Amino acid sequence: MNVRVYATPDLILPGDLTGTAAVVIDVLRMTTVAATAVQHGCAGLYAVDGVEAARRLAKETGALTGGERNALRIEGFDFDNSPLAYTEARVGGRRLVMTTSNGTRAIAACESPRRVLLGAFVNAMAVAEALRGETSAAIVCAGTLGHFTLEDALAAGALVYRLRALGLPVVPDDMAIAAEMLYDAARADLSGALSSTAHYRRLARMGFAEDIAYCLSEDVLSAAPERKGGGWFA
Amino acid sequence: MNVRVYATPDLILPGDLTGTAAVVIDVLRMTTVAATAVQHGCAGLYAVDGVEAARRLAKETGALTGGERNALRIEGFDFDNSPLAYTEARVGGRRLVMTTSNGTRAIAACESPRRVLLGAFVNAMAVAEALRGETSAAIVCAGTLGHFTLEDALAAGALVYRLRALGLPVVPDDMAIAAEMLYDAARADLSGALSSTAHYRRLARMGFAEDIAYCLSEDVLSAAPERKGGGWFA
Repeated sequence: MNVRVYATPDLILPGDLTGTAAVVIDVLRMTTVAATAVQHGCAGLYAVDGVEAARRLAKETGALTGGERNALRIEGFDFDNSPLAYTEARVGGRRLVMTTSNGTRAIAACESPRRVLLGAFVNAMAVAEALRGETSAAIVCAGTLGHFTLEDALAAGALVYRLRALGLPVVPDDMAIAAEMLYDAARADLSGALSSTAHYRRLARMGFAEDIAYCLSEDVLSAAPERKGGGWFA
Repeated sequence: MNVRVYATPDLILPGDLTGTAAVVIDVLRMTTVAATAVQHGCAGLYAVDGVEAARRLAKETGALTGGERNALRIEGFDFDNSPLAYTEARVGGRRLVMTTSNGTRAIAACESPRRVLLGAFVNAMAVAEALRGETSAAIVCAGTLGHFTLEDALAAGALVYRLRALGLPVVPDDMAIAAEMLYDAARADLSGALSSTAHYRRLARMGFAEDIAYCLSEDVLSAAPERKGGGWFA
C-alpha cells in the first residue's frame, strides 16, 4: 500500500488524491469529535465551511450543530468542539452538522478521493482496519490555519504504525516516514511531546485539559467515520 | 529567537517572512553546492529559475553555469549539480549562475526576508553562527517538486540543534519541534534514516553515492552563503 502523508491540505497537488482512500486528521479536536459522535450513534455528520451554511443545512435536515470558532462554541450551536460532550444521550440517532476552523477545510480539500475517512488517535486502529485492501492511502493532516501542527503528524504516524501492525505492506513517502519517526519518538509520552506546541498550549490555557487527554488516548473507539451518500459521514 | 520551519516553500503564507532572516535548505544538492562553491572562493552565486535565463545572465556577467534538470547536467553548462565538482581550481574568483529543480524555486519564494542564507548539513554550524543576534529565523525546506523531503527537514533540525548549542534562546514552531525530533532520531545514522526516502534513492540509483555521502557530512565548511547586493550570494 502506497501511503502518503500531507503535512497540511495545502500540499495536496492537483490529481494527487484521485482514486485513493484519504484519511483526514484533525486530532485537536474535529476528527476526534467525529469519531466520538459516530461511535455514540450519530446518524450522520456533515462538515461545512461557513457558520451560516451550517445553520441552514442543520435547519433543513433537522440536524444538531457543533464546532467552533477560535476554539469556542458558535452562538446558537448545540455543541462546542469538546469531544466529551458528544454522548450517546445527546447524539444517538441524530444527524450533526459541524463547522470548525481547520478540520472542515481539510475535508473540503478532499473532493477527488474514492473514499474519505476521519482519523484520530482515538480510532487509529479502526481506520487502519478500514484501509485493509486499499492499494494507496493519503493521510491529510489538517494543521492550523495553514500551518503544520505536530499533533496531526503524530496521529498520522500512529496510523502508519497500525497499518504495519496489521501486516499490510506499507510503502511510505517521505512525510509518512517522518510521521512514523515522530510517533516512534513521542509515543511513550504524547502529551509531553506536545506540551510546547502551539495549538496544544492554547487549548490547555483555555481550560481544555480534559479534552486534550481524551484526544491523545489511543484506540479507544471502534468507529471509522467514512463519507457516504450525500456527503454525510457515518 | 522565534524559529519557524517550512516543510516546503508552498507553506509560506503572505507576509510570513517579512523582516526575518530566512535560511533555504536543499540538501540534495543545491544548497550543499552553494556552500561548497562559496567556501572555495566563488565570487558570487545567482539562482535563476529557467535554463535560458541562466544562460543569458551567465553570458552578461561572465559567470560559470551550474545546476541540473532531472538531476543531470544541463546542455552546455559548466557544472552539473555535484558539489564535489565545485573545487577551488574551478570556481575560485569566478561568478556562478545556477538553476535547479527545487532549490532555486525555494530561493525565489524568499522575496521578502531581510536576509536570506543558504544552509545544509555541510555548513549547519556556520549558518547558526550567522543567525546570532536575530530575533526570528525562518528555515525553508526546498522539498522536491512540491513534496516534503526528509533530508531537508533533518538539516533544518540540525540547524535548530546548532542554534541551541550556541546558547541562543530558541522558540520553535511545531515544524521546528518536529525537525529537531527527526534529527535527534536520525543523527547517529543520517544515511540509514534516509535510505528509504525518494530523492535519496533516486540519486543513489543514478550513481551519486559519493555526492550523497558528502551532502550528509556535517559542519565541514565555514561558509554561510548570504544574499548580497544585486541578489548574488557570497
